[in-house]
Amino acid sequence: MPLWKIYHPPGAFSLEDKKGLSADITALYRRLPRFYVGVVFHAVEPQDFWVGGEARDNFVRIWIDHIARTMPTPEIRAMAIRAFDGALRPYIADKGLDWEFHIDETPFDLWSIQGLRPPPPESEAEKRWIAENRPSAYEV
Amino acid sequence: MPLWKIYHPPGAFSLEDKKGLSADITALYRRLPRFYVGVVFHAVEPQDFWVGGEARDNFVRIWIDHIARTMPTPEIRAMAIRAFDGALRPYIADKGLDWEFHIDETPFDLWSIQGLRPPPPESEAEKRWIAENRPSAYEV
Amino acid sequence: MPLWKIYHPPGAFSLEDKKGLSADITALYRRLPRFYVGVVFHAVEPQDFWVGGEARDNFVRIWIDHIARTMPTPEIRAMAIRAFDGALRPYIADKGLDWEFHIDETPFDLWSIQGLRPPPPESEAEKRWIAENRPSAYEV
Repeated sequence: MPLWKIYHPPGAFSLEDKKGLSADITALYRRLPRFYVGVVFHAVEPQDFWVGGEARDNFVRIWIDHIARTMPTPEIRAMAIRAFDGALRPYIADKGLDWEFHIDETPFDLWSIQGLRPPPPESEAEKRWIAENRPSAYEV
Repeated sequence: MPLWKIYHPPGAFSLEDKKGLSADITALYRRLPRFYVGVVFHAVEPQDFWVGGEARDNFVRIWIDHIARTMPTPEIRAMAIRAFDGALRPYIADKGLDWEFHIDETPFDLWSIQGLRPPPPESEAEKRWIAENRPSAYEV
Repeated sequence: MPLWKIYHPPGAFSLEDKKGLSADITALYRRLPRFYVGVVFHAVEPQDFWVGGEARDNFVRIWIDHIARTMPTPEIRAMAIRAFDGALRPYIADKGLDWEFHIDETPFDLWSIQGLRPPPPESEAEKRWIAENRPSAYEV
């Protein structure tokens, strides 16, 4: 479910950075099956990366879709944003890169993994998906 | 309207696969003008493609926006998801690739093709766009 | 906030085109801080770019997310679409390229820049962000 698309300058992240950042992003969603968390890195040359009409070579822009859960209250949303910024900090802010992210919430029932509809939040089937870290058929 | 962004491992799809898959995706939307259906393939190296904190070299992740129509009922949504998984199967599951997709529904009136607002669903103008498979000016 | 992802044929835009187009896109949002406006160009080879099941080498497809503002009325939406098409025309239509764009509106409170929540529309803090063209801490 969460899908993070990370636009970044070429060379901004080493393989270890990418591994660490995607692990830390995965850890943000501790109540979800780990395999729900997708991260796609996309290096963008400065001539293709514009902010306010200026080419940028030190900017990271992250576009996130949330599917498995919505965040119902302003307090939960604010807490999540803080946690996300905390996870990004060592990889981005601490290296002197600028950054921005935004999240959209998309419909739970327009989502499929391996030909299966993901089970309802907190269901027994979801607990099994978490424990096994893979999708499997379940009774509705 | 539907725009399919397909993240895939390098080499997962031949040119024939891409042609066949985009034709089969187009066929899913039989009540729409064919030219509404866009498909963008994007090869992602394993070091840029992470699921649950692990680099993946056999995973296809599809991000879809629907614009021209919304799917109003749970039954229609479930039927569509099944049809989509069926279209993907020969190109993905049958080759041993894993996959996931999700769909967002975005506003009809924030959409433009060739400087024209697409005509209302089932309108005479839409029927002409279907028949001619191209956009053309129409009276509102 | 607005993030424009522009899929285009390789070679469709020179560096001057990209600079001009991103400046003109930024100018569309005159009531926002300029640095809110992000534009990412992505060249797509014809074998990866399909419309209605046919490979395209002269098509520009733009995927936009709006975050900072929503457009509340049909009139405002229609006016914005016209303005956007006008901004694109010299770079796309006038060169004989085809094009399509769509816009989604995503939640204001699921958005962060440099670890800061962007200030409310028309607030004193937003006025300062506009004047200084950079994010800075503010009292809520």
